[in-house]
Amino acid sequence: MAEGVRSGPTMAVVARMAGVSVPTVSKVINGRGGVATATRERVTTALREVGYLREPSTPAAQRGAARLVDVVMHGLRSTYAAHVLSGIEAAARETGLDVVVTASEAELHRRETPGGGWLDHLIDRGTGGVLLVLVETTSAQHEWLTHFGIPCVIVDPITSPPDGVPTVASSNERGGYDATRHLLELGHRRIAHIGGSEPKLCSRARLSGYRSALAEANIVVPPDYVLDGNFQEADAFAAMDRLLALADPPTAVFAASDLMAIGAGRAIRARGLEVGRDISLVGFDDVDEARVTVPALTTVRQPLVEMGRTGLDLLARLMRGELVGDRVELPTELVIRDSTSSH
Amino acid sequence: MAEGVRSGPTMAVVARMAGVSVPTVSKVINGRGGVATATRERVTTALREVGYLREPSTPAAQRGAARLVDVVMHGLRSTYAAHVLSGIEAAARETGLDVVVTASEAELHRRETPGGGWLDHLIDRGTGGVLLVLVETTSAQHEWLTHFGIPCVIVDPITSPPDGVPTVASSNERGGYDATRHLLELGHRRIAHIGGSEPKLCSRARLSGYRSALAEANIVVPPDYVLDGNFQEADAFAAMDRLLALADPPTAVFAASDLMAIGAGRAIRARGLEVGRDISLVGFDDVDEARVTVPALTTVRQPLVEMGRTGLDLLARLMRGELVGDRVELPTELVIRDSTSSH
Repeated sequence: MAEGVRSGPTMAVVARMAGVSVPTVSKVINGRGGVATATRERVTTALREVGYLREPSTPAAQRGAARLVDVVMHGLRSTYAAHVLSGIEAAARETGLDVVVTASEAELHRRETPGGGWLDHLIDRGTGGVLLVLVETTSAQHEWLTHFGIPCVIVDPITSPPDGVPTVASSNERGGYDATRHLLELGHRRIAHIGGSEPKLCSRARLSGYRSALAEANIVVPPDYVLDGNFQEADAFAAMDRLLALADPPTAVFAASDLMAIGAGRAIRARGLEVGRDISLVGFDDVDEARVTVPALTTVRQPLVEMGRTGLDLLARLMRGELVGDRVELPTELVIRDSTSSH
Repeated sequence: MAEGVRSGPTMAVVARMAGVSVPTVSKVINGRGGVATATRERVTTALREVGYLREPSTPAAQRGAARLVDVVMHGLRSTYAAHVLSGIEAAARETGLDVVVTASEAELHRRETPGGGWLDHLIDRGTGGVLLVLVETTSAQHEWLTHFGIPCVIVDPITSPPDGVPTVASSNERGGYDATRHLLELGHRRIAHIGGSEPKLCSRARLSGYRSALAEANIVVPPDYVLDGNFQEADAFAAMDRLLALADPPTAVFAASDLMAIGAGRAIRARGLEVGRDISLVGFDDVDEARVTVPALTTVRQPLVEMGRTGLDLLARLMRGELVGDRVELPTELVIRDSTSSH
């Protein structure tokens, strides 16, 4: 961490050397698509040659950057984000670090915006460390963070990060298992699952937990009992509607998020049925909405504030040069409210 | 903005000059209580004498600090905070500014923690500007911000700030009026109000709107129809319960926040009545919970994301040395859902 970051001009030099535009250099640094392999290699070579490395910086700037940590989150508007961020901020305040927050959603939707990459920006400004929350990263991005000596921790990883990048998540598999066990114990046998998108680590783990609880109870899951709600309320509504239209509809549903459970609840009511009485419903997360919907939602609580805290603590330890464990899993907890009842 | 900030050591010098402790100097700077008037004056004099002013800083540090804006929010965990912050962050990203976020709730609860003041910290680190959200400020704090040349904008002020400090709020009075008019137009005459704490600017304005709509309709408000829900769900539950126990209970209630409306809704259901059918209910804010509660809540929507955006835009203009208007009021909008019906 004794070296500083060269800003803009170096990128221009690299672009000239590689015979490409600055946005192309930026794309390579940020691990975005749309760059031919040969071009990518030319840019990488130029970056190596020019020693795109930190110059010793002034003590003031150094100290300033080292006291900042960057939190890059998929979005800021959800209660999920609010809870995780509040944990991060509280831990940072106690550690004497300041939290710079960036939403990456715009970036995700407009991947090709030149110069819009958060990684460019962090490398240009200098930062003490990066905490990524629900942000998809590429191995090229992690290589660059390592290259610039920027420590990184991921909270709720979407895909498996490279070895050596610590992650914090909740016990998603166990949570899915507990949700499904709860329904089994209430006497339900026809239990469906509305999941998130398969490729996400957390969705896969929640689905695994569901399958494992049913397998243990010797229940075969009909293929049409597992549907993708894409973490969207509207998609979950549609999925629930399909489930209710089956010849042999489920009596209980485990949804992989509270918002999807709420969408499913709407579909149940839209058919004149009552959540909790006619169909039992379990969500996941325990965001504010779960407590407030009627009937209040039985759900698997993720320790969101604690996940944020733990992520920041790990990052602070990396910034002090300590070694930290790679994979931290915090326990989930089944919260029983009024949306489930015995069958 | 051509001067930098002296950090810690100056406070120690001032403390010695004034014959007080560093925490006392910090208290004076942060406008906290617990300092005798004579002591306060001695400290202020010493601060003036020592020229507690910025030294010219290095260009790098200067640029670094000028690109940071500090957002100090009452808390981060609510959907209110999430929406406002997402507007701030989006506008900052577009303007090329980075957002450092701090929750002041701990500060509010532990006012006397020495050195814990956000203002100390900002003056020590240096910042391009400060955006305060739902944070109570003292005139001493504003004097200091002015003294150090740190521009400041307040979103949703709790008390009237000094002239020259721009504020952004929504049309609270109009919102209260619209909510009450809506209930009047549905045929309700016995309309109660569960408000926030009186001293808050927004609560007073919402209450004014309510009173004004009823006065226009020549309806005299019984004194026991206006209760304080303290912006807490539990307090609103208790208030609603008291309203329902009246000899002449209201048929409709306007609550000054969605969470209070949700608390009131629980009290209504607890007495075996149905929200929307037996008692009409209007909230305020339109946070995520409003849409998700059952029946979905009729409410007055505050443009929270836009309020954040506007606050940041005003701050960016102040940072560029432009003059901006003092009081910006963004329009609220009545959102009619299922918690209100005709009487």
